Amino acid sequence: MFIEHRIEGLRGYMKKLGLDQVLIYDPVNVNYFAPIGARVNDRATFLYVTMDECRIHANDIIGYTSLDDKYTVYHTDGDDVCEAIAKVTMHDKPLAVDGKYPAKWLLPLKKAGAASDYILADRAVNLQRAHKDVEEQQLLREASLMNDRVMQRVRGVFHDGITEREASRIISQFFVEEGADKPGWCIVAFEENAANPHSHPGDRALKPGDTILVDMGSPRKQYHSDMTRTFFWKSVDDRHRAIYELVKNANLAGEAAVKPGARCCDVDAAARDMITEAGYGKYFLHRLGHYIGLELHDPGDIIFGNTDPVEPGMAFSCEPGVYLAGDFGVRVEDLVIVKPDGTAEVLNHDNKELEILGI
Amino acid sequence: MFIEHRIEGLRGYMKKLGLDQVLIYDPVNVNYFAPIGARVNDRATFLYVTMDECRIHANDIIGYTSLDDKYTVYHTDGDDVCEAIAKVTMHDKPLAVDGKYPAKWLLPLKKAGAASDYILADRAVNLQRAHKDVEEQQLLREASLMNDRVMQRVRGVFHDGITEREASRIISQFFVEEGADKPGWCIVAFEENAANPHSHPGDRALKPGDTILVDMGSPRKQYHSDMTRTFFWKSVDDRHRAIYELVKNANLAGEAAVKPGARCCDVDAAARDMITEAGYGKYFLHRLGHYIGLELHDPGDIIFGNTDPVEPGMAFSCEPGVYLAGDFGVRVEDLVIVKPDGTAEVLNHDNKELEILGI
Repeated sequence: MFIEHRIEGLRGYMKKLGLDQVLIYDPVNVNYFAPIGARVNDRATFLYVTMDECRIHANDIIGYTSLDDKYTVYHTDGDDVCEAIAKVTMHDKPLAVDGKYPAKWLLPLKKAGAASDYILADRAVNLQRAHKDVEEQQLLREASLMNDRVMQRVRGVFHDGITEREASRIISQFFVEEGADKPGWCIVAFEENAANPHSHPGDRALKPGDTILVDMGSPRKQYHSDMTRTFFWKSVDDRHRAIYELVKNANLAGEAAVKPGARCCDVDAAARDMITEAGYGKYFLHRLGHYIGLELHDPGDIIFGNTDPVEPGMAFSCEPGVYLAGDFGVRVEDLVIVKPDGTAEVLNHDNKELEILGI
Repeated sequence: MFIEHRIEGLRGYMKKLGLDQVLIYDPVNVNYFAPIGARVNDRATFLYVTMDECRIHANDIIGYTSLDDKYTVYHTDGDDVCEAIAKVTMHDKPLAVDGKYPAKWLLPLKKAGAASDYILADRAVNLQRAHKDVEEQQLLREASLMNDRVMQRVRGVFHDGITEREASRIISQFFVEEGADKPGWCIVAFEENAANPHSHPGDRALKPGDTILVDMGSPRKQYHSDMTRTFFWKSVDDRHRAIYELVKNANLAGEAAVKPGARCCDVDAAARDMITEAGYGKYFLHRLGHYIGLELHDPGDIIFGNTDPVEPGMAFSCEPGVYLAGDFGVRVEDLVIVKPDGTAEVLNHDNKELEILGI
């Protein structure tokens, strides 16, 4: 029931960080190490890991079918699961829990004397999750190929007068037809709305000369996709064209900055410096990217301050943008995986050269 | 920005339970006391309540528009929110946090010396939420009236050969047309599948003589609805009829047991005893009901062991069932609110007498 090499990877980080015992609650984390279908539930499932032990604590009412009884401690509704866990932890050592571990199961653990202290396990768990194994990389590739297919169809959706909301709904359904786990999420933002990085599709109708920003994705076999393209409707003026070229080149610069020895902050800087030098630094309002995998935003960012090295297997978005409030905005986003040689494999193959639609 | 009488109600329970300071994280709880649109987010929002103070800690990037600056402490991405909170808590008193409060913001609070100890606030928060105010009661009524309208239309959905999944999808859309916040959830289970209380609609096709169990609901203006009816297709034999009458009468007995002085466990017992006396006690596999409101399952159950009194304003489901594995099952469920006189106002008005559809 455990994916052994992921557990071993975690143990490597535990050793490096001096953690003797880890207790995991977040179902995404549990399923990453032991794909049992754990989910958020009042009847929680816990994963306990030490250097030589690995164990699941599960409520027998949940009925997960893939549990191996040899490595599972069952409890039932009447039992105190915290007391049961506290019986088998190392009481004289700190216990590291993941960040989402809820107070209702943490404070009773403490009361039951489970450990000498309580600390966070996130650094170890997140470093392990950040380094995708071969199977995960393949799933991410397939999810992004699906996203490419949808983006191809996006080009046929628009006509004069269509609203952002209408376009978004149509695109969302494309995902189901292209093999997604569920209808996709899809930000469609026209012209002045594209200047808001968190725009919600609304009643704004498309008209000639508009910027069309489309940011979209959906999980496929549980692994996420995420891509942004910015088009123009029927015509584009020099001002829009200049910003587009700047953002596209910043996207390429970010991707090219992925190389041996680079840190996450260096990749952010490569894209950001280009935009800053052109005088638009203060209009690039967010981090360059976020890690991605089982979650749309896996823990970790490509951002100023993240001095972790960019290492083979890491997967993240490269999504610079320039947002001119009240005017228009442009964002260009791909996903990348760091290849064994330390450079970027770009997972999206959709065209990034400026496109005028509707002509 | 605060709903004053709810904060005052919480303070009443805090006093009763000896809590001096409460720190709330769960966005459902935050929005209940201060409807600011808080949501699960890496940039969390916290509500701090003492006997004479009430304050929100929010990340200014989130941009909640309804925050009152006078009672809000803003922080931004670079700040340590836990340190900021620890500066203004009572260090010599225990701090009560809600159950979902995550370790990643609890352990740093402890490190920053925010309080003398850390305990759970759930009992106080949940007691307050269990007692619905006039506005909430009205919203619950309207949501259940919507559910009644949908159940009326459910009767026209079935025909020979329709699958559970097809029926479920059709019914789910009715909710949007009847004013729900979103498409409804809907369990449709035929005959042997109705014997599983957590059945998922599948490819089972309807045939004459089948039991049709429909358990469904959707939030309307954020307040939930939840009702079950069990019908029969084209004919019903005496065995099915007897179980149906037993379950319906148990439902009525549960609703009639809501009266001054009754405890939650007494209401469960009233329905359960009737089923047990008929010899089917071991086939009634679950609690009689759950609290309901902003969540489909608000914290709290109508169950053996809950000795809390049934008090005016409380809202819960009354849903006895008999599940004969491999054979068939029946469940009949309404929502009730406890009236000022201590008896039950049944929120669902849909017929509960045995109905044979398709004739």
